[in-house]
Amino acid sequence: MFPGANADPAGADYVVVGAPLDASTTFEPGARFGPRRVRHFATPFDDYDQRTGRQFTDCSVADHGDVGPTDDVAEYLHFLEGTVGDYADEETVPLLVGGEHTVTVAAVRALDPDVFVCLDAHLDLYEAYAGNPLSHATVTRHALDVADRAVILGARTGSEGEWDRAAESDVTVVPPEDVADWTPDLGSGERAYLSVDVDAADPGYAPGTGTKEPFGLEPREMRDVVRSVAPHAVGVDVVEVNDRDDGQAAVLGAKLLREFVFSHADANTF
Amino acid sequence: MFPGANADPAGADYVVVGAPLDASTTFEPGARFGPRRVRHFATPFDDYDQRTGRQFTDCSVADHGDVGPTDDVAEYLHFLEGTVGDYADEETVPLLVGGEHTVTVAAVRALDPDVFVCLDAHLDLYEAYAGNPLSHATVTRHALDVADRAVILGARTGSEGEWDRAAESDVTVVPPEDVADWTPDLGSGERAYLSVDVDAADPGYAPGTGTKEPFGLEPREMRDVVRSVAPHAVGVDVVEVNDRDDGQAAVLGAKLLREFVFSHADANTF
Amino acid sequence: MFPGANADPAGADYVVVGAPLDASTTFEPGARFGPRRVRHFATPFDDYDQRTGRQFTDCSVADHGDVGPTDDVAEYLHFLEGTVGDYADEETVPLLVGGEHTVTVAAVRALDPDVFVCLDAHLDLYEAYAGNPLSHATVTRHALDVADRAVILGARTGSEGEWDRAAESDVTVVPPEDVADWTPDLGSGERAYLSVDVDAADPGYAPGTGTKEPFGLEPREMRDVVRSVAPHAVGVDVVEVNDRDDGQAAVLGAKLLREFVFSHADANTF
Amino acid sequence: MFPGANADPAGADYVVVGAPLDASTTFEPGARFGPRRVRHFATPFDDYDQRTGRQFTDCSVADHGDVGPTDDVAEYLHFLEGTVGDYADEETVPLLVGGEHTVTVAAVRALDPDVFVCLDAHLDLYEAYAGNPLSHATVTRHALDVADRAVILGARTGSEGEWDRAAESDVTVVPPEDVADWTPDLGSGERAYLSVDVDAADPGYAPGTGTKEPFGLEPREMRDVVRSVAPHAVGVDVVEVNDRDDGQAAVLGAKLLREFVFSHADANTF
Amino acid sequence: MFPGANADPAGADYVVVGAPLDASTTFEPGARFGPRRVRHFATPFDDYDQRTGRQFTDCSVADHGDVGPTDDVAEYLHFLEGTVGDYADEETVPLLVGGEHTVTVAAVRALDPDVFVCLDAHLDLYEAYAGNPLSHATVTRHALDVADRAVILGARTGSEGEWDRAAESDVTVVPPEDVADWTPDLGSGERAYLSVDVDAADPGYAPGTGTKEPFGLEPREMRDVVRSVAPHAVGVDVVEVNDRDDGQAAVLGAKLLREFVFSHADANTF
Amino acid sequence: MFPGANADPAGADYVVVGAPLDASTTFEPGARFGPRRVRHFATPFDDYDQRTGRQFTDCSVADHGDVGPTDDVAEYLHFLEGTVGDYADEETVPLLVGGEHTVTVAAVRALDPDVFVCLDAHLDLYEAYAGNPLSHATVTRHALDVADRAVILGARTGSEGEWDRAAESDVTVVPPEDVADWTPDLGSGERAYLSVDVDAADPGYAPGTGTKEPFGLEPREMRDVVRSVAPHAVGVDVVEVNDRDDGQAAVLGAKLLREFVFSHADANTF
Ligand SMILES: [Mn+2]
Ligand SMILES: [Mn+2]
Ligand SMILES: [Mn+2]
Ligand SMILES: [Mn+2]
Ligand SMILES: [Mn+2]
Ligand SMILES: [Mn+2]
Ligand SMILES: [Mn+2]
Ligand SMILES: [Mn+2]
Ligand SMILES: [Mn+2]
Ligand SMILES: [Mn+2]
Ligand SMILES: [Mn+2]
Ligand SMILES: [Mn+2]
Repeated sequence: MFPGANADPAGADYVVVGAPLDASTTFEPGARFGPRRVRHFATPFDDYDQRTGRQFTDCSVADHGDVGPTDDVAEYLHFLEGTVGDYADEETVPLLVGGEHTVTVAAVRALDPDVFVCLDAHLDLYEAYAGNPLSHATVTRHALDVADRAVILGARTGSEGEWDRAAESDVTVVPPEDVADWTPDLGSGERAYLSVDVDAADPGYAPGTGTKEPFGLEPREMRDVVRSVAPHAVGVDVVEVNDRDDGQAAVLGAKLLREFVFSHADANTF
Repeated sequence: MFPGANADPAGADYVVVGAPLDASTTFEPGARFGPRRVRHFATPFDDYDQRTGRQFTDCSVADHGDVGPTDDVAEYLHFLEGTVGDYADEETVPLLVGGEHTVTVAAVRALDPDVFVCLDAHLDLYEAYAGNPLSHATVTRHALDVADRAVILGARTGSEGEWDRAAESDVTVVPPEDVADWTPDLGSGERAYLSVDVDAADPGYAPGTGTKEPFGLEPREMRDVVRSVAPHAVGVDVVEVNDRDDGQAAVLGAKLLREFVFSHADANTF
Repeated sequence: MFPGANADPAGADYVVVGAPLDASTTFEPGARFGPRRVRHFATPFDDYDQRTGRQFTDCSVADHGDVGPTDDVAEYLHFLEGTVGDYADEETVPLLVGGEHTVTVAAVRALDPDVFVCLDAHLDLYEAYAGNPLSHATVTRHALDVADRAVILGARTGSEGEWDRAAESDVTVVPPEDVADWTPDLGSGERAYLSVDVDAADPGYAPGTGTKEPFGLEPREMRDVVRSVAPHAVGVDVVEVNDRDDGQAAVLGAKLLREFVFSHADANTF
Repeated sequence: MFPGANADPAGADYVVVGAPLDASTTFEPGARFGPRRVRHFATPFDDYDQRTGRQFTDCSVADHGDVGPTDDVAEYLHFLEGTVGDYADEETVPLLVGGEHTVTVAAVRALDPDVFVCLDAHLDLYEAYAGNPLSHATVTRHALDVADRAVILGARTGSEGEWDRAAESDVTVVPPEDVADWTPDLGSGERAYLSVDVDAADPGYAPGTGTKEPFGLEPREMRDVVRSVAPHAVGVDVVEVNDRDDGQAAVLGAKLLREFVFSHADANTF
Repeated sequence: MFPGANADPAGADYVVVGAPLDASTTFEPGARFGPRRVRHFATPFDDYDQRTGRQFTDCSVADHGDVGPTDDVAEYLHFLEGTVGDYADEETVPLLVGGEHTVTVAAVRALDPDVFVCLDAHLDLYEAYAGNPLSHATVTRHALDVADRAVILGARTGSEGEWDRAAESDVTVVPPEDVADWTPDLGSGERAYLSVDVDAADPGYAPGTGTKEPFGLEPREMRDVVRSVAPHAVGVDVVEVNDRDDGQAAVLGAKLLREFVFSHADANTF
Repeated sequence: MFPGANADPAGADYVVVGAPLDASTTFEPGARFGPRRVRHFATPFDDYDQRTGRQFTDCSVADHGDVGPTDDVAEYLHFLEGTVGDYADEETVPLLVGGEHTVTVAAVRALDPDVFVCLDAHLDLYEAYAGNPLSHATVTRHALDVADRAVILGARTGSEGEWDRAAESDVTVVPPEDVADWTPDLGSGERAYLSVDVDAADPGYAPGTGTKEPFGLEPREMRDVVRSVAPHAVGVDVVEVNDRDDGQAAVLGAKLLREFVFSHADANTF
């Protein structure tokens, strides 16, 4: 269980859903252990958040446990979409923990946001990667099937084709150097989905991820994005954490999830 | 032996005292191996410090070795307080290497500073943690039994009760974002004690610590605090380094100890 | 093979040469596995570089493989110098991957640059270290036997003798704090050699190196140096990466090599 | 949850109880992560056991979760004794997973066996260790307060005082060399408790334990002890597994727990 | 390159083929790095084999490099079967290095042996696992589509269905305890294929594998099987080595490959 | 300090001498950390040895500390020979802890034994390796310059030239399979030197060594050799332990040193 996520899933305001998919990881595998790691390294966090004056255990967060992968990824995403959708129907905000980035596709399909906001080193705008239309490198492309536009924060690499796609009007790329100054220009009523690929961080801060890419974000920059997007968000995920470091990637992912909850609760409570 | 600490403990200006206590570590244990790690990763440092023009081996630093923990923590702190106090009586400045943060209590009691300056991710202002009044989470509270005031640099988390305590007039909390601009406003004659909990650093720079907390300090910010406080300090410690990383936490801790010695020697020599 | 380095060594524009020497490493050994690690962690990089609009596989990069060390270091450097020189004769720019920093001596001798630009935590200006004139700590000194001047970026430690040598007019030391603002003042026609000792980075970003030294550079600062020097460079190396971390040092080294190629190709193509 | 332990704790035949105590570990800490590791490395086991023809999921095994340590060890043991005792009252056989060996004391007190059978490298016959009467080194001594006799299998080290105690008539020490030939001479109706300190194994098979002692048992020897004692046992534990290896200790501990269940179920079902 | 495999693939007697498939690994992934690890840890082996009086470099062994996986496993196996078949057509004996066990299916299909001899902790007799007919748990079943019979050495676990299948007349299971006494009863002219799943070894000897299963074989027992089967074999593989240990699994796998070559060469040379 | 080695070096019966040479290690380096590791993992051993009825702290063992390597290996060996010789002159038995195997040469030269008994996977009978007459692969050859004969226990690999040399009358090779049955046929008055290269053990028991070689010895077989040779020995060493495992190699090496002391003391006391 995610520490402090002791609400009953039925009727909770938030629900942690583990999605340990690890099928298309290109380089270093282990994203399947992401939910396990994220929950573990959240252990020592204080319940209290001084900025918002909230206790995590008062935020009505439940833990659904993991949705175990099946060998057929399309089928898995379909099932996961159902799980996330059921929570959304109850106005429970999903906090998805990957697993590879592909799991985001299920959440986006279930939640149907207007804007897809993504922290990622990669554009993930392939139509298919290595012949696979459900590769982790296609996530933003799939998101754009649902959302009107995408904002990719911290992206610093992609194929030529991906950069061409990114140049279209429905995609905004904010390079790492500009993320600190970025503010979400979300119209009132625009519903956002926030996806946190932990490889957006510089590898020094998150070595435990499948495809490390140097020159990335600092943790506080990622935190500030989470804080500013959360009030507008219908869902969030933290993905691509694996077990190949000393806890750096997992503790960052876990903390960002908590920042989301506190910021979202703060903005949406009366 | 800490590399270069080749003075005779009797009559030395500084003395490294290992304090491998690892009793109340909440999450990832291994602080007991902190002194061993800190000494080891100090191996490749140059003897010479260009900023101050000093050789470490000329700074009259001794190494007392470790004060081995007993199962009774109160008794251990009492004994450690005696050891530190004996050195203080000889005007030998103690350089304590933990072990968990609790060992600081012994040094503070022995040295009786006016101000307790602490680099830490945590407030450590519990009266007791999990029923234990000698937990690592109570250190600043104990320090305030001795010192007139406490300055906690880099703190970013605590319980609601700790934050209430921190709001009192004898505690100054400098959040991570403000540490770079902080200057010690130490009155002339105010005697400071400097405690470096390595978890003040962002986990990217010090993953080998028991309770990682993201959004922390950069090493140079910690260094600048050490440099500015050292001239006023009667003692220093580096605590909460464990053996669960690839040397990052230990090498940072070792370097900060050296910065302390050079800065203190520079300010106190004629 | 370095990923994407699929040109024929004969006639290539660039050639990766592995130089896994690990003879004089003072503290933590393993630099012999540097070429292996650097090639491995380059695996997930995109072929395309958006800044320059180039594909790595179009840059005519070959991989020579490793030049295996012999027990006689002088003999090894002589042989390695021959290999590098042969490529230089064909106007193939060498991309050397160490191994300990000593391998740089061979490249500098072969290429005879006017300026030696070096990213390094250390001055490496010893005449001999521990009696060894071919220690990794002597590299800049050897380089100055060939080049007219040396610029050491990110240096933050050295012996008193090294700092004295550094004070002479043919050496410029840029401390870590000033590297972000540094621009190469290379005269037209001045031929530079760029040496990247990965320990220039802060240990948080490159723990896998033999002699960690805190308070170092951020990866983007190193990148900007590489980008600005590459157009003037006749060769480059990345050295002192070992296998004692979770890939941070290797992925940074690999990325800097790629930045060099893209920047150099961009400046030297018509 | 221990894989396959999907029965309801109320009315189950067996119950896994995690006891992550890590207070008196003398050397390498981490036993607190033993329950987490043991459950994790049990993941790939087949449900079916061919020797007994049983499915683990048909054996009515529940998982109680962990009983979280308190700072007061005596109090913790008292609470744990209550938990184990409650299960015993319902004729649910406890499968305790440590944690340090001290947790065994709670189980033995709750279950009141006639014979204490222990696999251990150490005698654990101290009255107190380092002044601590509840150290892991006192377990067999405590067990003898309850049981009529103790059999220590695989023991190969102890203090002179412990060996003197071991020479008394109520203790049988079977050295590692003789364990393969040992058969339990349990009288009919003699109720046994089986305690598996994983350091009984040679460190090659279980490096992840706090106090490695060479010249130990082979895994099959431990298995055969478990198989032969289980039919007579009222409870079992696996202790002293930590997270400092690549899974060897945990997978061995997990397998031995399963062997216990299959053997016990086989002997006690009609 | 596998150390010493310096023959030209065209016309070699043996060829190392890396098959880094890592698609269906159930538990701990990383088999994709098996070929890399096996080649690396073979580095320090002597060229000479005293038992057979042969130099490895005289055995005409080539290294094909790796056959990189595609996302479609069926397609990948088809391609790999082609590669292995092409070598077989030239009477070059393939030495396959996985990757997950599934790659064996390609080799068996290409080589069409009479007998499938397998060292494995698992029966691998599923028709499909988790809905996947190309899971690593189906290998022996696929092999029996081609071979007349299968001998599984060291098997100690399987599902009830697998054990039922194993009870049929075309399967012989030799439990770990009996492997030392096993001799291949291969009729003259019977062509064998030898598959070495490294998890046949006890986890103490090969922790770096995806699904550890205690109570396994000793390395010398595996060696003796390799020596006795090699003279009759048309191909061999070593599979399921990953990068999650300190080299134990890889060095064992590498050594067994060499034993195969020496034994096969010794038996088949005139 | 080696735990329990608290005698004064002047006049001690035994002296631990650390020799962290790591110059010619062919494959995985780190033997320089052998003395550090061996001392560390000896921490939890009981003082008492039940077999001999002795306390280690009563055995008059001192710890000389480490003799730090110089870059000139010949010079280093000369100095080390002097250190060992000085102790021998005082009838203090040296317990050398490497470091690479080459350090043995110094001890053998200093002690001038009649018989060189060696536990090693390798023959170490090169005259020179890679052009280096002081490589770790030449140790037995150097020993035979001093001793009348050599017995190599557990050897299983070597070059053809080494095996030829091993076939001469002054060398006895006992293959791993025969070590259990070996007894030293030392004539009365024959003075032996015992060298323990930890790679004699199977890699499962000692993965932390530079050149792993499967099919090796079990720890108890090594122990029995130590016990039987110690009474006749004038010195012993444990070499080739590095820091690349989880303590298995170091704890085995440390234990064998202790077995030597107890056995030697037992045989030589009146
Ligand atoms: Mn992504
Ligand atoms: Mn990404
Ligand atoms: Mn603290
Ligand atoms: Mn703290
Ligand atoms: Mn350098
Ligand atoms: Mn350097
Ligand atoms: Mn015990
Ligand atoms: Mn024990
Ligand atoms: Mn298999
Ligand atoms: Mn298997
Ligand atoms: Mn040797
Ligand atoms: Mn050897």
